[in-house]
Amino acid sequence: MIQIFITGGTLDKRYNELNGELDFPETQLPAMLKQARCTAEIDLQLLMLKDSLEMTDKDREDIKQSCIASNAQQIIITHGTDTMVATAKHLAESIKDKTIVLVGAMVPYTIKQSDTLFNLGCAITAVQLMPAGVYITMNGKVFDWDKVVKDKQHGEFKVI
Amino acid sequence: MIQIFITGGTLDKRYNELNGELDFPETQLPAMLKQARCTAEIDLQLLMLKDSLEMTDKDREDIKQSCIASNAQQIIITHGTDTMVATAKHLAESIKDKTIVLVGAMVPYTIKQSDTLFNLGCAITAVQLMPAGVYITMNGKVFDWDKVVKDKQHGEFKVI
Amino acid sequence: MIQIFITGGTLDKRYNELNGELDFPETQLPAMLKQARCTAEIDLQLLMLKDSLEMTDKDREDIKQSCIASNAQQIIITHGTDTMVATAKHLAESIKDKTIVLVGAMVPYTIKQSDTLFNLGCAITAVQLMPAGVYITMNGKVFDWDKVVKDKQHGEFKVI
Amino acid sequence: MIQIFITGGTLDKRYNELNGELDFPETQLPAMLKQARCTAEIDLQLLMLKDSLEMTDKDREDIKQSCIASNAQQIIITHGTDTMVATAKHLAESIKDKTIVLVGAMVPYTIKQSDTLFNLGCAITAVQLMPAGVYITMNGKVFDWDKVVKDKQHGEFKVI
Repeated sequence: MIQIFITGGTLDKRYNELNGELDFPETQLPAMLKQARCTAEIDLQLLMLKDSLEMTDKDREDIKQSCIASNAQQIIITHGTDTMVATAKHLAESIKDKTIVLVGAMVPYTIKQSDTLFNLGCAITAVQLMPAGVYITMNGKVFDWDKVVKDKQHGEFKVI
Repeated sequence: MIQIFITGGTLDKRYNELNGELDFPETQLPAMLKQARCTAEIDLQLLMLKDSLEMTDKDREDIKQSCIASNAQQIIITHGTDTMVATAKHLAESIKDKTIVLVGAMVPYTIKQSDTLFNLGCAITAVQLMPAGVYITMNGKVFDWDKVVKDKQHGEFKVI
Repeated sequence: MIQIFITGGTLDKRYNELNGELDFPETQLPAMLKQARCTAEIDLQLLMLKDSLEMTDKDREDIKQSCIASNAQQIIITHGTDTMVATAKHLAESIKDKTIVLVGAMVPYTIKQSDTLFNLGCAITAVQLMPAGVYITMNGKVFDWDKVVKDKQHGEFKVI
Repeated sequence: MIQIFITGGTLDKRYNELNGELDFPETQLPAMLKQARCTAEIDLQLLMLKDSLEMTDKDREDIKQSCIASNAQQIIITHGTDTMVATAKHLAESIKDKTIVLVGAMVPYTIKQSDTLFNLGCAITAVQLMPAGVYITMNGKVFDWDKVVKDKQHGEFKVI
């Protein structure tokens, strides 16, 4: 069983036509998994819906405690890309015995040219195949949490 | 470097508005990889554009020879789902030293609720992580070529 | 009040992932009108869901009787493009006192590059602005029923 | 010939994946008209790409002068919805002999559930059918410029 913890991030944003902003009326994860025709056994749990720039230390601690409390050995965390590495670091310092994959998107699922489903496919596959550890899947690659940085100028994750 | 061999299949079909049929005017793989923001190094090669029900023994042999001739250790084959397992079997009988992943889709990339990008994310991740062997990635799972069947009634791949 | 009679046609087709064919599991008109944010008062009625090449004389007569029986002065008929002109002719021979607009699409609503919503916008506007008569709206134009032909080679409606 | 003057507005916004904002890298009108399979003769001219909340009196005057200078009798102006009525008023005070239709969208063309193509179909049809005057087409209706208001709470245009 794969545990998916939803925390928000670009992949889950929607255009609010009343104010012209992108916000989080609700998660799109069930719609994504349906479109994916995913038959892997998944337990979806909503922890929060936040832009990752607004995540606090308490939020990261809550995510960590949820990972520890989960019965699952394989955990995916949907997350904003801007502070994904910081959350990965916080998790890696305490959790050594589970496979945890953080995943996000550069373009929301609700926008036409979104990378969300591709990234989700990468995450669901990596979490089943990788040994215990904390990883990030973006741009078709699986990164170790401590060897990756977001290049904000190009909007890509790169090995450091 | 990941070698992608394109052979056609549902994922690459487009609606032909002049005759109302689904056909293959050209491959959509470059558009898919662009939408995916994939930065993994990929070499795309078009072998054929066929519905997999129309694939011949010679086609499968051509695919096999292309895999053998490729310099890549990691090979993805886009393929129609109906005879994907038959092609996987043909490859597995001769090729033991490369990681080969076959991938397709239930709904074409050009149709709104397509699973193509998700499946492609699974394939690109699996081909980088799995040991030598022949695999199929569909429905969020990585199947050994000899332990999978397409359940045509439900449109899903299942372990046998 | 605008009466919309649904008869099928390309605009309402969906990809059936179990057999790879395009068929009509149900009409998409409610989804289309929702996406359009249409607030014009509309009464939707499903008459049939047919490819227009399969429409019979009895079908055209049924459509005609539905138009005659409707209380609405403004009627839109969603219809396959291949025999749209034949149905328009059948209606025009008997109905002189209502504004009837036939509309279809070259690409189904469920496919990414669909013209359906554009054509529907044309039809809803034309039916409110045109005097009594039978018209076809395709390609951004309003055609009199007896001065239009589908150019099948180019997939466009043209004045004759 | 229909003249389309592009001024920006929600319909033409795109998601900028580098900063997470919606902006205007370029107009999408050619892509929209291609998707629409529109064969009406159209002259597209880009005047500006602005959120209508940022439009100045000088911008409105420039739009007016462009309308006066155009050889076309039928003019469409793509425009943000928030100040569309103000621009319509400015045009109507000076121009009496042309048919001018302002059109926008609640959701950008680049977002999945966009109303843009529907609204554009309404505008292209209305501009061909209405007598000289200034109009707004939104929500499937054609409004006289001086009898319409945007209900910002519901995101709809309504008769006053």
